[in-house]
Amino acid sequence: MIIGGAEDKLRKRTILREFVAASGGEDARIAVVPTASSLGAEVIEVYDALFRREGAAEVIAVRPESRDDAHDDVLIKTLDEATGIFMTGGNQLKLSAIVSGTPLGDAIVAAHRRGVVVAGTSAGASIQSSHMVAFGGPGATPKQRMTQVAAGLGLLESSVIDQHFDQRNRYGRLLMIVSQSPSLLGIGVDEDTAAIVEHQEVDGADHEVLRVIGRGSVTIFDPSRITTDAFEAKRSAPILASGVILHALPEGSSFDLTTRTLVPQGTLVDLEEAAEIAVASHDLRRMARDIAAADASPQALRRRMARTRKSTPPPAAPQDGATS
Amino acid sequence: MIIGGAEDKLRKRTILREFVAASGGEDARIAVVPTASSLGAEVIEVYDALFRREGAAEVIAVRPESRDDAHDDVLIKTLDEATGIFMTGGNQLKLSAIVSGTPLGDAIVAAHRRGVVVAGTSAGASIQSSHMVAFGGPGATPKQRMTQVAAGLGLLESSVIDQHFDQRNRYGRLLMIVSQSPSLLGIGVDEDTAAIVEHQEVDGADHEVLRVIGRGSVTIFDPSRITTDAFEAKRSAPILASGVILHALPEGSSFDLTTRTLVPQGTLVDLEEAAEIAVASHDLRRMARDIAAADASPQALRRRMARTRKSTPPPAAPQDGATS
Repeated sequence: MIIGGAEDKLRKRTILREFVAASGGEDARIAVVPTASSLGAEVIEVYDALFRREGAAEVIAVRPESRDDAHDDVLIKTLDEATGIFMTGGNQLKLSAIVSGTPLGDAIVAAHRRGVVVAGTSAGASIQSSHMVAFGGPGATPKQRMTQVAAGLGLLESSVIDQHFDQRNRYGRLLMIVSQSPSLLGIGVDEDTAAIVEHQEVDGADHEVLRVIGRGSVTIFDPSRITTDAFEAKRSAPILASGVILHALPEGSSFDLTTRTLVPQGTLVDLEEAAEIAVASHDLRRMARDIAAADASPQALRRRMARTRKSTPPPAAPQDGATS
Repeated sequence: MIIGGAEDKLRKRTILREFVAASGGEDARIAVVPTASSLGAEVIEVYDALFRREGAAEVIAVRPESRDDAHDDVLIKTLDEATGIFMTGGNQLKLSAIVSGTPLGDAIVAAHRRGVVVAGTSAGASIQSSHMVAFGGPGATPKQRMTQVAAGLGLLESSVIDQHFDQRNRYGRLLMIVSQSPSLLGIGVDEDTAAIVEHQEVDGADHEVLRVIGRGSVTIFDPSRITTDAFEAKRSAPILASGVILHALPEGSSFDLTTRTLVPQGTLVDLEEAAEIAVASHDLRRMARDIAAADASPQALRRRMARTRKSTPPPAAPQDGATS
């Protein structure tokens, strides 16, 4: 569960609620990892209150502050027994510097493998991809050296995640990364928005499907057909990135990460229009019957039409109070 | 010539210089249309000085301030005799409100048709497309109603141009427009950057080709394969825009607007690498000769190799001072 930062904590709380539900609701044992943050205790207090309000049974802090701490058996046991893991925002390089390649980092990866929901917001979102945006500047135009990449936890393979995407104008830097690494899929998540990645069986095969919830969008850059000069662009020059396929996905849309295609949605039906079509369809069927009858016996038809004129109107629209 | 605003006026002046050259250099008669601007006289003074410094013979103001003015025969005659037309920045809705659909507007279109270079910066860029961004907010995520479209002059058909693209974060609004109007090509031009559109013969057919100069990039959104819910997205909700093909084009790249594809570039040759390859190639040719000789007469080969060891080194690198 990849959250773009600044998830709504006070009003609708869509994302936090969905996380607690996915962690088991009343049976949820949630481990909060606040290592990215410079605040620590305060951050734990906030998420403890939030997750308990949504009904979680237990909220436990797992707060390594050094690579030594990340070998602590008690912390690792907590992760092993958690039904949900939540990584807070802050500095993703601090988080990965302390956690990646340690038994504690391995415990997060293992929990994810056995189906425990692992969520993270902001820095805690960035670290989930195989390749992590370490830091970098804003701007819509991709430029050489505008950002740095480090290794993430790899919960999501062959990808690079960016967050606060709309709010901090991070189009350019994500485009720069996928131009330099066209095997990766770029995933930009807006604030108060989450990309939920689940495994689904599609035609007998296992696919990773990304679903969007929240107020903003998830932007995907698919560079598989890119033409680029990223390997020779100099200093901080703008980079050529031609032929990137762009997907801007609002709440309710789903994207198949395995095939890199949008999952088709059912169309919304307009009830008024449906009522009009039902009436037209009734009229058409009658007209077809009349034409057939006229072919068979013109006289019989004239008699029936005379009767019809005096009686039934077309059927009522299927919705009471529908106007046209 | 579509300039994204804030073109460099003091230092390298790449764009203004190219405009004057395209207008005829020393023979250039340039008409400046400052109508978008609220300044007028000052703006004319600045561009008059700039174009004269680049060697233009004449710079003449064409400044209609009402639709009545836009019927003035003297102004229209100036446009008819100009070898270059330059529309300044300001408010593109003011410019189109005064000029579009008037004899003066028609004179600009006619000049463009007969091959006179028509340039515009900022507002003067926006008005060149068939569909014009009237105004709208910033942001990377496309949202319903975040911008308004009006009619432009249509020098560039089936397109919508946006400017200050990187600097004012206008990704979202341009994406919104092409989602609602997938017959259009979206063209976003950064500051101090120009998209120069020229007609070229490609395989016997007339193509419009866009070439980029300047410090930033030109971003193109091709929505021809889009899947979108723009027709039913409510209020200010984020819009689904899946499958848009994105091209970020820095200086030196060319894009065929007719086929909507990147024009392939010659690869830059690294001189050091070329020198190394020349040496390797010489060695390989010798090795091939030696192998052939060994097959023919092992004894003759041994004699020749003994001689060779004492004499010629491989040829010098093709560039003096090249290192490897």
